[in-house]
Amino acid sequence: MNEPVDASPGSSSGRRIPAGWVSSQPRAERARQVADVLRYQITAGKFADGALPDERSLGEQLGASRNAVREALDLLRFEGLIIRRRGVGTRVVLPKYGHGLDRLAGLAEAMTGYGEITNQVRSARRVTELPVPIAERLEVDPSAGGVYLERLRWLDGLPLSLDTTYLTADVGCGVLDGDLAGRDVFTLLEETTGHLLGSAEVTVHAVTADPDTAALLQIPDHAAVFALERLTRLSDGRPVDAESIRIRADRMALTATLHRGHVQP
Amino acid sequence: MNEPVDASPGSSSGRRIPAGWVSSQPRAERARQVADVLRYQITAGKFADGALPDERSLGEQLGASRNAVREALDLLRFEGLIIRRRGVGTRVVLPKYGHGLDRLAGLAEAMTGYGEITNQVRSARRVTELPVPIAERLEVDPSAGGVYLERLRWLDGLPLSLDTTYLTADVGCGVLDGDLAGRDVFTLLEETTGHLLGSAEVTVHAVTADPDTAALLQIPDHAAVFALERLTRLSDGRPVDAESIRIRADRMALTATLHRGHVQP
Repeated sequence: MNEPVDASPGSSSGRRIPAGWVSSQPRAERARQVADVLRYQITAGKFADGALPDERSLGEQLGASRNAVREALDLLRFEGLIIRRRGVGTRVVLPKYGHGLDRLAGLAEAMTGYGEITNQVRSARRVTELPVPIAERLEVDPSAGGVYLERLRWLDGLPLSLDTTYLTADVGCGVLDGDLAGRDVFTLLEETTGHLLGSAEVTVHAVTADPDTAALLQIPDHAAVFALERLTRLSDGRPVDAESIRIRADRMALTATLHRGHVQP
Repeated sequence: MNEPVDASPGSSSGRRIPAGWVSSQPRAERARQVADVLRYQITAGKFADGALPDERSLGEQLGASRNAVREALDLLRFEGLIIRRRGVGTRVVLPKYGHGLDRLAGLAEAMTGYGEITNQVRSARRVTELPVPIAERLEVDPSAGGVYLERLRWLDGLPLSLDTTYLTADVGCGVLDGDLAGRDVFTLLEETTGHLLGSAEVTVHAVTADPDTAALLQIPDHAAVFALERLTRLSDGRPVDAESIRIRADRMALTATLHRGHVQP
């Protein structure tokens, strides 16, 4: 009904309909592909002024029917990436930034050049006993205690992530005296210990936000968020910082450059 | 009402209640922390026989109230990680595997030792014209055409990911003749070109599954999934493989070891 007609390249209509997109693929599949392409373009900053082309232009550029384009835009709206208003058109809600997984960096460091990170310190205190599984990860006895931090991190005035951190007692106490509202914990750790951090093991989960997290991050209940576990070590290999971080997935993507090379021994 | 009482280490009750967990933190916050610890333990394979301790034991081990533990278990059930049945207790639904982001590897390669990957080939065909944004990423003219693959990938008899791939025409045609049901595209690419792949740029998004994806992956509508964009290059740097992959986030986490080092130039 509203399906585009395949046109040979250079046909007088000027519409380029890639053959792969108008075959027997069902509309949901094409909509997913269109959404993927647009998500990629949004993250890459292709829509400099924030305005997406209209449905008809998108359909022509991407070789998809109006219905598939509309379905794709619904998916992206549900993800919180775009907003659609009659008379205004379709706009990117917020830039989506890539946070590199190639190198260990604090959030403010990683966002240098993108915007200003500020931290709302919700909790910063010594604890006399660590939770058993956290103590195991930090390779200390629970009774050694430590420092507990919870910070809600803002980028350009909107919540970006909720960071929960346990630090070992020896390095944590110095960090408590630092500028937790203005600085990355990594930088504070390096300043107070006088040593560079070494490495970190990171595990990334995708989860839906519980209502409490959603309220703090100002996103809808059950929106998708990243949940990161990160265990950071000093350069001598000793673990000192066990973090659990929830990141708004509408504002940030994670990026990496991978090399083929050989399997690590 | 049902809040645990702080106990000094070694108290005769034998209950270890970490001080940091029973302070003024609201229950939702403690529930989130308990869920994080259990998710970490599930992913690390700590519950070898799949059975979690009962609520009371978890509360004691993690220093949280029964209500906070129950709320945490509800979060993990919503994520699809655990199942709770009266008389049976709480069990891990499926093992959750870590897929390393340290090295470029196909799924079957990465899952070696975990289980068997099989591929349901939904689409495998030449296309005479590439979608414009895909052609841009592959650095070819749209009219150069290419090969389109869509595969639903199964791990041990359950869907794990939905992979949509565009290959450049020169390398793609050889891959079409390969064993797409049994092999990774990476391996097929290396066999048909006679060269190792070089590197890939990966962008990871967390999104909620659209109904069509959810049905294919056999997960609830709007469950969180990873959406990966991956552009893979031959060892000479030429991009040949533009993929869009949706991965069930209840079955897989992404892992990386990051090093502090210096900022890449």
